[in-house]
Amino acid sequence: METTNTTAAARPRLRIRRINLDTGRENVAVMSRRSKALRAEVFRGFSRVEVRSDAKVLLATLLITDDDQLVGPEGLGLAEPAFRRFKEPAGSLVTVTPAPPPDSLDAVRAKIQGRILSAPDIDAIINDITHFRYSDMEIAAFLISSASFMTSGELIALTQAMSQAGTRLSWKAPRVVDKHCIGGIPGNRTSMIVVPIVAAHGLTIPKTSSRAITSPAGTADTMEVLTRVDLGVEEMKEVVAACHGCLVWGGHVNLSPADDILISVERPLALDTREQMVASIMSKKLAAGSTHLLIDLPVGPSAKLANALEAMRLRKLFEFVGGHFGIFVEVVTTDGRQPIGNGIGPVLEARDVMAVLGNDPDAPRDLREKSLRLAAHLLEYDPELRGGTGYARAQELLESGAALRQMHKIIESQGPSVCRADLGTLTVDIAAPRDGVVSQIDCLRLNRLARTAGAPIDKGAGVKLFKKIGDRVEQGEPLFRIHAFDESEFDLAVAIAKAGTGYVIDGERAASRAAP
Amino acid sequence: METTNTTAAARPRLRIRRINLDTGRENVAVMSRRSKALRAEVFRGFSRVEVRSDAKVLLATLLITDDDQLVGPEGLGLAEPAFRRFKEPAGSLVTVTPAPPPDSLDAVRAKIQGRILSAPDIDAIINDITHFRYSDMEIAAFLISSASFMTSGELIALTQAMSQAGTRLSWKAPRVVDKHCIGGIPGNRTSMIVVPIVAAHGLTIPKTSSRAITSPAGTADTMEVLTRVDLGVEEMKEVVAACHGCLVWGGHVNLSPADDILISVERPLALDTREQMVASIMSKKLAAGSTHLLIDLPVGPSAKLANALEAMRLRKLFEFVGGHFGIFVEVVTTDGRQPIGNGIGPVLEARDVMAVLGNDPDAPRDLREKSLRLAAHLLEYDPELRGGTGYARAQELLESGAALRQMHKIIESQGPSVCRADLGTLTVDIAAPRDGVVSQIDCLRLNRLARTAGAPIDKGAGVKLFKKIGDRVEQGEPLFRIHAFDESEFDLAVAIAKAGTGYVIDGERAASRAAP
Repeated sequence: METTNTTAAARPRLRIRRINLDTGRENVAVMSRRSKALRAEVFRGFSRVEVRSDAKVLLATLLITDDDQLVGPEGLGLAEPAFRRFKEPAGSLVTVTPAPPPDSLDAVRAKIQGRILSAPDIDAIINDITHFRYSDMEIAAFLISSASFMTSGELIALTQAMSQAGTRLSWKAPRVVDKHCIGGIPGNRTSMIVVPIVAAHGLTIPKTSSRAITSPAGTADTMEVLTRVDLGVEEMKEVVAACHGCLVWGGHVNLSPADDILISVERPLALDTREQMVASIMSKKLAAGSTHLLIDLPVGPSAKLANALEAMRLRKLFEFVGGHFGIFVEVVTTDGRQPIGNGIGPVLEARDVMAVLGNDPDAPRDLREKSLRLAAHLLEYDPELRGGTGYARAQELLESGAALRQMHKIIESQGPSVCRADLGTLTVDIAAPRDGVVSQIDCLRLNRLARTAGAPIDKGAGVKLFKKIGDRVEQGEPLFRIHAFDESEFDLAVAIAKAGTGYVIDGERAASRAAP
Repeated sequence: METTNTTAAARPRLRIRRINLDTGRENVAVMSRRSKALRAEVFRGFSRVEVRSDAKVLLATLLITDDDQLVGPEGLGLAEPAFRRFKEPAGSLVTVTPAPPPDSLDAVRAKIQGRILSAPDIDAIINDITHFRYSDMEIAAFLISSASFMTSGELIALTQAMSQAGTRLSWKAPRVVDKHCIGGIPGNRTSMIVVPIVAAHGLTIPKTSSRAITSPAGTADTMEVLTRVDLGVEEMKEVVAACHGCLVWGGHVNLSPADDILISVERPLALDTREQMVASIMSKKLAAGSTHLLIDLPVGPSAKLANALEAMRLRKLFEFVGGHFGIFVEVVTTDGRQPIGNGIGPVLEARDVMAVLGNDPDAPRDLREKSLRLAAHLLEYDPELRGGTGYARAQELLESGAALRQMHKIIESQGPSVCRADLGTLTVDIAAPRDGVVSQIDCLRLNRLARTAGAPIDKGAGVKLFKKIGDRVEQGEPLFRIHAFDESEFDLAVAIAKAGTGYVIDGERAASRAAP
């Protein structure tokens, strides 16, 4: 008995239409309940559909409407991301059929039941995710099943699969150095100081950074105050050829795109597992062609790592994966008890960075010291440099103005910034409620404050700190200043700050309150 | 320092507007990118928002639009399900704020990391899910974390929490009997025969059934051919008072609503774990006030249970949970190698049922025999009935016409059907490709065929079987007939049937092909 393949072609076709709805990562299609293609109820048991033109195919989650204004019976609506990815003009004819889930989902179900995944299983999963064939729920299923337990073999396979799913950079230099911080500490823009120092020395350091997702600023957001950051691969290579280094946003370079998708699902679920963090970071570094990598793990009560033991476990994982792929990985544990630098928010942080590079006597000392220490490690990857002299060399490049000149060269090569660089004009100073000594600063609360005030969307919004741990304060003396542009956001930030500054000040009474 | 609570009230308010978009279970809100409430980008890190009127609050997933036709800067769109659940009129004023995830999600994350959940943890999770506070992804996270491993304590707590989340029925009768089949077998409408037999005897059997989700018919879909099934709790009680039994759709009765939500997420993920199945079924029976429960586990190569060992494991779980809650549970394993009865699809199945109840000599014998056997078990829950006489009593009630009269009484009490009861007029007979004996019938394939032909949306669509396992067939003799109304669906069903009938016919060559 022969298989009939002509049926699909004989199907009624629908005209696609763009629906102005940002559905994030997920592909969404909208069909009329009276669609002439197939009755909407038929899809009830499926939820996902395959949209097919002569040349292209797209998997999408289906929503149903009765509103002809949105989509009539002859049409098929595609929400923005799906329309963009499908790459067919509005009005093109398509067929719609119920879509079976991707085959690789069988492996995800096996993993849920406790089986170990093979490298080809993981390759297939990551490939389907990269091509937007998984729904958000299916991605969540993969993440959660691996969050419970992942073997070291699975970790290696995941890192490898993710690193191969997007752009892979290669460089002529024998040593390509990089640094990465796992994040969580407000301020802390060391990359913007370390990269010009290391590049001024002549080592290749092609740095890609992320934008903030839940924090008030990522390195890319802060760098954007000074220069253009949305460079493509070829532009990035030109900058590195001219300056030995760059500081660009990773988004246009498309390193490990599966990682960006996984993160977009991990975040709302607040999943945070060591293995996934390591696979995420190492896949990007593998794809970026790094040979030597320095990893900064801040430890503190409100940092991502609460103590040295957690940091040690994470370090071992980084070293294991680095070792497997032949990347020299060095992991340093740093002080994550409070923000680094004085500013939180892109403009304030950019000013801190330029003050350090400009050897301004008022530049934040902690940001300067930490950057020099990190740069010292990276510089010693240069075999010409005598062991133990990295710090002195970093200091020399900073104090001589070579690092500042290198930063200006990078800024000029990347192109002019299009952002406003002024500070938020709505300001309020939040005062100490008592005399005493600052003993703790809650990083999470200050991040939330700066974000509420409008950072990073408003580059000039944020928080400027006047006091750090160990400083004496008097009652009524300002602890920090909030900057904002938008009034309702300013009001909300002020209310949050008044409800709790995030500072613990040890007077006699405060000392007891500070206990967790 | 005082907390400021006035800020939210001072916030710009938006007017809600209904958006004709069926987003299924999930609450979805649509906001303009230029919204005057809060800038859309601020929500990037959150994805869920809290929509608050003076009296009500709703958690929703946020989508962004640039299209003022859809939602302008002063408005907030609510997709159909969210609008319905929010229960405020269009044009009402609301505030919108980024919503932190429900607290109970901490327990879900702990479960992902391998911790055992306490009963209060599970109560809180089920309560939040029932109140639509979880996104689909968050529900998936809970299901997947429990799919990997669930203790018996967790299973009990989950069953209990689910049973308490909706309507709880209570009955005056000392014995409230019920039956349940785990599904998967086409035809198999035994409930519609068992209920009138048992009710005719005088035992209380208030049966609620589901509609098909992925199959071509649920008991509620088939019963709907004969009578109204969308009764509320009070109406259902009246029918049971008048007839001892009923056959209604569970949807309006709202037993264990969390179960319906969990199933809507399990299905697209094709998660199928024993513990979740048991919690699902037992929570509904607990809420329904059942005291004696008979469970039908069909076993066969294309059934949900492939062998006796799997059935035995599931039986133990049902008995364990029944024992804990004081429900007498009896589990029977039945032949699930092929469809039960001749019809697949609501009208065809209803005809089979009425033929059995009417003692029609052409009525399907397998459906009659299985129904009598199940009824026999249920009748023996009557302490007045002597052990071992259940089958004879069931036969007596059927053959005397008492069961048929009881069915007519139930039909009359529930009210007239509003459905068409005619058979699909597009028909084709699918013929045997060779002489031989039918040795296997693929339940999954026949379900798919009947569903593709339009069942259960078209009540009269489906498949009518002429041959069952053990029957001799000649080449060209019809195996089954497809019925449909819609031409494109008919074409597709015919193409699927021609590509593979789902029948294995043992001739000399077929016998070897039949091996799995």
